[in-house]
Amino acid sequence: MFNIKNIKVKDIMTRNVITAKKDESVIEAFEKMLKYKISSLPVVENNKVIGIVTTTDIGYNLIKDKYTLTTTVGEVMTKNVVTINEDASILEAIKKMDEYGDKDEIINQLPVVDKDNNLVGIISDGDIIRALSKIIR
Amino acid sequence: MFNIKNIKVKDIMTRNVITAKKDESVIEAFEKMLKYKISSLPVVENNKVIGIVTTTDIGYNLIKDKYTLTTTVGEVMTKNVVTINEDASILEAIKKMDEYGDKDEIINQLPVVDKDNNLVGIISDGDIIRALSKIIR
Repeated sequence: MFNIKNIKVKDIMTRNVITAKKDESVIEAFEKMLKYKISSLPVVENNKVIGIVTTTDIGYNLIKDKYTLTTTVGEVMTKNVVTINEDASILEAIKKMDEYGDKDEIINQLPVVDKDNNLVGIISDGDIIRALSKIIR
Repeated sequence: MFNIKNIKVKDIMTRNVITAKKDESVIEAFEKMLKYKISSLPVVENNKVIGIVTTTDIGYNLIKDKYTLTTTVGEVMTKNVVTINEDASILEAIKKMDEYGDKDEIINQLPVVDKDNNLVGIISDGDIIRALSKIIR
């Protein structure tokens, strides 16, 4: 019916990625995500992704009083970050979002890296839905 | 390559929908979404969807100090809610999420209604990505 193999991650990813540093406080990171209406922040050091935080996880732990004012992003970030290469097809992105997600929820955002593993973008489930919408009848 | 027309919204939607009432405070609604790790709350009256609020919108306005402690869900909810029928295909859901979204972002969640317009579920972009992942090779 349609062939999504022809669409690459780099064709539809967001290129201006808002990131966090590991020494930032989680409160600051949370406020940044709300301010820019984004749902995750890759944590970056020397242009490499060393972790990721999400509004969902930070928000949940804030509500549960798990953090203090001095808790840093580096202390709470997910360190096993699932990334995807910019030249991968969005088919691979769909598979990764599902397979590396948990029982209840997929991974909604994948940081995108180039062949040297530098961060070059981010792709969301919403980006993929939008791309599919354009090619299906 | 694969036919997503055969998957209906009701096959993959979440049936236990967490909702809000219009008299709830926005702070309460925001905390509820964080606690349950959900990104939107349909606002319901007599089992009909009369509005919707999202963590993105509420979080943004909280950060911008646009709300007070007494601001209610009814005052800030989106009233033109885009819903989808439970018997629609996920193809239609993809189209709706894109076409009724704005320039930057699709609609990530659609309340699902039956033929009498009663709320029976909710479907997210993540639910669709997961379903696609299962049927593509």
